[in-house]
Amino acid sequence: MPTETDIFEQLRQELRRGTLILAVLAQLRVERYGYSLRQALASVGVEIDEGALYPMLRRLEGQGLLSSEWREEDKRKKRFYRLSAEGEAVLARLADEWRSINDTLQPLL
Amino acid sequence: MPTETDIFEQLRQELRRGTLILAVLAQLRVERYGYSLRQALASVGVEIDEGALYPMLRRLEGQGLLSSEWREEDKRKKRFYRLSAEGEAVLARLADEWRSINDTLQPLL
Repeated sequence: MPTETDIFEQLRQELRRGTLILAVLAQLRVERYGYSLRQALASVGVEIDEGALYPMLRRLEGQGLLSSEWREEDKRKKRFYRLSAEGEAVLARLADEWRSINDTLQPLL
Repeated sequence: MPTETDIFEQLRQELRRGTLILAVLAQLRVERYGYSLRQALASVGVEIDEGALYPMLRRLEGQGLLSSEWREEDKRKKRFYRLSAEGEAVLARLADEWRSINDTLQPLL
């Protein structure tokens, strides 16, 4: 039987899931590779583990919202990701959507 | 090949999904039946179709966050839902979580 904490955790994950993508897209206005992206997210309080981040990056690239490129830095090949023009357009619309959801929820909570 | 609009719609749904539960829980601080709940949600700009709402209500009740009761009103039997004590506790924690996600996203967007 799930405890109240289990149930809260599950709902919390559902709440975070959609917003994680927003945070990832926003942080990729600047080109970053996986590790530097995770650091940038952590610095603003968004924790995401590698097992969730890499599939998300591949998905977003597959959807055309990100572009990526392998490059050597500090003698190591790294895959750099960056928001595409389409990604910028989608991010702007999602940010609007977010503000509108927010305006709705604020008075309810 | 999905268009930019398809991709946006999909991400928009993901963004809304977690917040819908928050809105539903918040509106059930007051006892309501399905139709009156949908009206209350619509009045604050939250659209949800029956096919999504009823399974969500059953799930939340199964998790102990809602209690329900069949009662006759206007000569029709209706199932009334209301936040349980556990639901109130979970809603308060989710609302805190929401504010914290919000404080994080705001400066990024």
